[in-house]
Amino acid sequence: MPELVLLNNLWILVAALLVFSMTVAVGLLEVGELGTSVYRSLLKTLLMSGLAVVVMAIVGFNLGFAPTWDGLIGNPVYAQGFFLGGFSSNYAGTFGTEWWSMGPSYFNTGLYPGTYFLFETAFASVTLALVGVVVLRKVKLTSFAVYSVAYFLFIWTIPAAWIWNPTGWLAKLGMVDFAGGLVVHGAAGAAGLGILVQIWREERARGLRASPPIPPRPKPGWLVLSILLLWLGWFGFNPGSVLQFNSEVVVVVLTTFIAAATGMVSFLSVQFFRHRKFADLTSGVNGTLMGLIVITPLAGFVSPASALILGAVCGPLFAFAEGRFVRLKWISDPVGLLPGHLVGGLFGVLMIPFFAQTIFATGSGYPGLPNGLFFGGGAAAVHQLGIEALGIVAVLAFVFTVSFLVMAVIAKLSDGITTTQISAARLERYANEGNDSYAMTAPSISNVSPPGR
Amino acid sequence: MPELVLLNNLWILVAALLVFSMTVAVGLLEVGELGTSVYRSLLKTLLMSGLAVVVMAIVGFNLGFAPTWDGLIGNPVYAQGFFLGGFSSNYAGTFGTEWWSMGPSYFNTGLYPGTYFLFETAFASVTLALVGVVVLRKVKLTSFAVYSVAYFLFIWTIPAAWIWNPTGWLAKLGMVDFAGGLVVHGAAGAAGLGILVQIWREERARGLRASPPIPPRPKPGWLVLSILLLWLGWFGFNPGSVLQFNSEVVVVVLTTFIAAATGMVSFLSVQFFRHRKFADLTSGVNGTLMGLIVITPLAGFVSPASALILGAVCGPLFAFAEGRFVRLKWISDPVGLLPGHLVGGLFGVLMIPFFAQTIFATGSGYPGLPNGLFFGGGAAAVHQLGIEALGIVAVLAFVFTVSFLVMAVIAKLSDGITTTQISAARLERYANEGNDSYAMTAPSISNVSPPGR
Amino acid sequence: MPELVLLNNLWILVAALLVFSMTVAVGLLEVGELGTSVYRSLLKTLLMSGLAVVVMAIVGFNLGFAPTWDGLIGNPVYAQGFFLGGFSSNYAGTFGTEWWSMGPSYFNTGLYPGTYFLFETAFASVTLALVGVVVLRKVKLTSFAVYSVAYFLFIWTIPAAWIWNPTGWLAKLGMVDFAGGLVVHGAAGAAGLGILVQIWREERARGLRASPPIPPRPKPGWLVLSILLLWLGWFGFNPGSVLQFNSEVVVVVLTTFIAAATGMVSFLSVQFFRHRKFADLTSGVNGTLMGLIVITPLAGFVSPASALILGAVCGPLFAFAEGRFVRLKWISDPVGLLPGHLVGGLFGVLMIPFFAQTIFATGSGYPGLPNGLFFGGGAAAVHQLGIEALGIVAVLAFVFTVSFLVMAVIAKLSDGITTTQISAARLERYANEGNDSYAMTAPSISNVSPPGR
Repeated sequence: MPELVLLNNLWILVAALLVFSMTVAVGLLEVGELGTSVYRSLLKTLLMSGLAVVVMAIVGFNLGFAPTWDGLIGNPVYAQGFFLGGFSSNYAGTFGTEWWSMGPSYFNTGLYPGTYFLFETAFASVTLALVGVVVLRKVKLTSFAVYSVAYFLFIWTIPAAWIWNPTGWLAKLGMVDFAGGLVVHGAAGAAGLGILVQIWREERARGLRASPPIPPRPKPGWLVLSILLLWLGWFGFNPGSVLQFNSEVVVVVLTTFIAAATGMVSFLSVQFFRHRKFADLTSGVNGTLMGLIVITPLAGFVSPASALILGAVCGPLFAFAEGRFVRLKWISDPVGLLPGHLVGGLFGVLMIPFFAQTIFATGSGYPGLPNGLFFGGGAAAVHQLGIEALGIVAVLAFVFTVSFLVMAVIAKLSDGITTTQISAARLERYANEGNDSYAMTAPSISNVSPPGR
Repeated sequence: MPELVLLNNLWILVAALLVFSMTVAVGLLEVGELGTSVYRSLLKTLLMSGLAVVVMAIVGFNLGFAPTWDGLIGNPVYAQGFFLGGFSSNYAGTFGTEWWSMGPSYFNTGLYPGTYFLFETAFASVTLALVGVVVLRKVKLTSFAVYSVAYFLFIWTIPAAWIWNPTGWLAKLGMVDFAGGLVVHGAAGAAGLGILVQIWREERARGLRASPPIPPRPKPGWLVLSILLLWLGWFGFNPGSVLQFNSEVVVVVLTTFIAAATGMVSFLSVQFFRHRKFADLTSGVNGTLMGLIVITPLAGFVSPASALILGAVCGPLFAFAEGRFVRLKWISDPVGLLPGHLVGGLFGVLMIPFFAQTIFATGSGYPGLPNGLFFGGGAAAVHQLGIEALGIVAVLAFVFTVSFLVMAVIAKLSDGITTTQISAARLERYANEGNDSYAMTAPSISNVSPPGR
Repeated sequence: MPELVLLNNLWILVAALLVFSMTVAVGLLEVGELGTSVYRSLLKTLLMSGLAVVVMAIVGFNLGFAPTWDGLIGNPVYAQGFFLGGFSSNYAGTFGTEWWSMGPSYFNTGLYPGTYFLFETAFASVTLALVGVVVLRKVKLTSFAVYSVAYFLFIWTIPAAWIWNPTGWLAKLGMVDFAGGLVVHGAAGAAGLGILVQIWREERARGLRASPPIPPRPKPGWLVLSILLLWLGWFGFNPGSVLQFNSEVVVVVLTTFIAAATGMVSFLSVQFFRHRKFADLTSGVNGTLMGLIVITPLAGFVSPASALILGAVCGPLFAFAEGRFVRLKWISDPVGLLPGHLVGGLFGVLMIPFFAQTIFATGSGYPGLPNGLFFGGGAAAVHQLGIEALGIVAVLAFVFTVSFLVMAVIAKLSDGITTTQISAARLERYANEGNDSYAMTAPSISNVSPPGR
């Protein structure tokens, strides 16, 4: 029915637009948590939005979403997606018909290639924005721009081809990841970790004993604006992942909003009991984000009441994870990519075999997903758990390795990816005086020793 | 027809999202008018957004919108709304069918429970945000968080059950309030007044002779962003209150935008003639808000030309109301809850029996509303005026009383709701020196006398 | 089919809302580029949004979009548009039926008058916002408010009546301008130039030898927020200009986003090669805007691949144009109205006869547009080029002349339009001391000489 096809396309375009705004929102999140010293985060995220559109339009979309070669990677020159149809004068066959995987043989939602392109490109962009929260002032913008192109070519697209492309090898095994607990959040964590390793290699070579932390300097206005944009963005992110408009979209709105709200209340409560006073805005923001992250991979598979439970777990989970990662002195992750997105995303994926209910998954386009263990899934749920774990291992290993290698190559070609070329003598001075303006923002600078001693 | 049902749900979800963003926008409004000293407004409004979703999802939505007990309050355990359907495996009957009052017997718009829930929850949240503009730095955030839970349980929901629930006692009498001149704006004013009484009881007990005012310190960027978000939000607030998508929605967009624009121009003109120079951004914002508030209760009942007239009245009306409330020295209401939302909301409700035209109200779902006095309504319009007045009295009395009592109980249990525990000696010092940082932001501090003298 | 009509109206209302937010976004752009000294830009753009709605609702919409008198101007008292239908009790004929030009004889999209009104009013408003970037702190707000009323009455509406009204004389000749390369961007440049002439007349009369420039003082947060709002706004601006929802809307989303992204990457690359370092946020914003401007007049006529090419040209084009205009010392145009909107808009219009493909234009409602020269258009394309050039000359001459005359009349009636009434003695002091606070923001103040020497 043409009206339903048009309605689906309108809905997914609007959802894509909301997701598109999340990339810049992550830049505002960095500024909101760390202050004006990271203003270049804003150029970084704007540039990412642009590179995502350009690279995905030329060939990236095909690499992720065209029919795959052996389930491993999409056909880069698939006609409908290569340069988004180029100058094709076959309008009806190129622009006026659905993308192959949106046809009756697969998801059957009637989305046009351009609609699906914009939605997935917005996802690719915001995933890189999450990765990028670890580069801050440390990594050269040129290095990160080159990395971004590689990221949109194969670091983001290949896991998408494995899981979200219906011909991907993990998808064929039965792996599900509704809106990207692994493809987005987990993978962002792994990619960020790959970059952090390269940063640390360079910092250690300069004689640092710990990665100089960047202290929180909240700018409440930008912080609340970023969480508002992210929350609104998630309205496109999760409900849009149904890839059509039906009654399940409404349920996904509920699971998403309830997990966000419960995550916020849960983490604020944890902070209240830990510190005996009302927490700050940053805690409210982090709790909300944790709720949104955890629900992402299963928002389309669970009931609103399950979302309430999953949100309630987020407070203790984030508090615990943050406490663990902060001990790793070679990592500077002030915005919380690892305790938030990596831990939260993987936790959510692993909850699928516990909380899923087939009746909800059916409306999301996954009628084959078995009930979870809490809903009588039994052996089928355990089998599902194994598949999800396999997918996690495969994707994390791939993304971490490639992300690190790409940055290592860039470092080799351009004399390192980090900007602060601090001399040994200057480091000595830092350690003695401690009143340099950089040192002022990096209290642990006394961990520094000159190289070679 | 399923396409129309889906279209209605999509439209109301989008409208709900726009309204949802208004809660944080009110926090930005506070910062925009009063400066960084009220940065905690941002945590306050973020928290409210979260508490609204949690409390309304568990039981609040039912209390307002489930079939009522004797027209007084909704059935809290109505299955579709209790925990939003819980873990129900009856998908079709719970999530895939319309909410009872959206069925053919009542509004006949086909909205799913989740759609209607999100829309009304966003309304509840922003209403509390309006109430909350009076707490500022004065009230403890813990006290206000507890109040918020009570607010979403019965202070907001019971008037909604009376007027917007088709089985409510006022609705059955024929009371109408299109998008909340009374349920939102008037009630917010009454609830805020209840809190102000408790604040004043505590301030007076500390020997203050006037409630320390918080001076305006505009932050133009945040101020303009807040009015933009509020204006966009009202696009969901009023047109969304048609609860479906039809040609009347377009008319409501017009009445809303025209009243906003005319209100702005009207108040800026008043200020120009009073001060012989062009007013500031705050006046532009306040005029816009007054236009939006006044049109809210009748946006779906009047013509665009009537909206122009109603907007033009807003400038003088707000100027007059502001002049009256500023004389009440025991009240500190720097953002204008009382002259704006209370006066504007009630004024709009009372204009229904004058400006309404049945042909517009029919498209909004109220075919029984008689023409207003200006359109030949005669006796029926006078009767309608009586009903509206009765509704106003009942709701204001209920909300003011309960709001005050809830805060009084919280104060009793937690040693007061206000934060500034200023000793008599310190107050004396303020009066003498006047150079304390708090005093600097509160020029009328010389109104202070130690208690007991 | 009623569902399609409703879907079209919903889509265009949402598009209109996105465009509506662009006016304030231009205010934020000014603050983002020039800092807090131009905070009154925010009141200016808020006021414009209001005046646009009021003036267009009363009669402006009719002047542009009602059936024209001899193709020159719309009938001001056309019933459906005069006061937007007034208090009409003929609901079905006034509000419940499509606007005449949206009926089967013309665009056949079924848009209600209110839908089309809001969309076009948002366009009028943002066009004036672009014009207004040249007034900054120099022009009195009262002068600009009066100018705004004239602008919405006939400066904006008459070119719209010529080109976008299907009975306009240029439209009948075959002139096309998809979303306003000429009606919006080119005309904004011409109107701004008219104001700049009047500003310069007054500045020269005060003895200035150059128009005091306003230096860039980027506020990155506001800058990135403004480009985000503008980019999102363009999602309504271009795709909404299809005036219905069909598969071509999706293509227009692609051409718009691809040109924006490619424009950004292109200009950042140009800046990188010119300065051998990574550019700043302002360059990223300007490149994005140039891409969006250039694609505007032909977004609905070209393929995504053509958009990529057009975007790639934007970097060199903007760099060249900016270099030319900066030499004109009597002009102060720090936000780049002339090199951006005037040059980019006209360039885009002139590219129509090169890049257009009839198959795309058909989906946008212009099946009569011939293929461009690059797609075998031949003589028909050359003929189209002539028509576009004629339209450009006619509109620029009209808008520039009327804009200048209106400001000259306002200046006559109110002792000048500019605010800085600097005495000769004070100018002398500036030239000698150079340490006045105003001089500090205007380094070229040494170009000043007292009048009469």
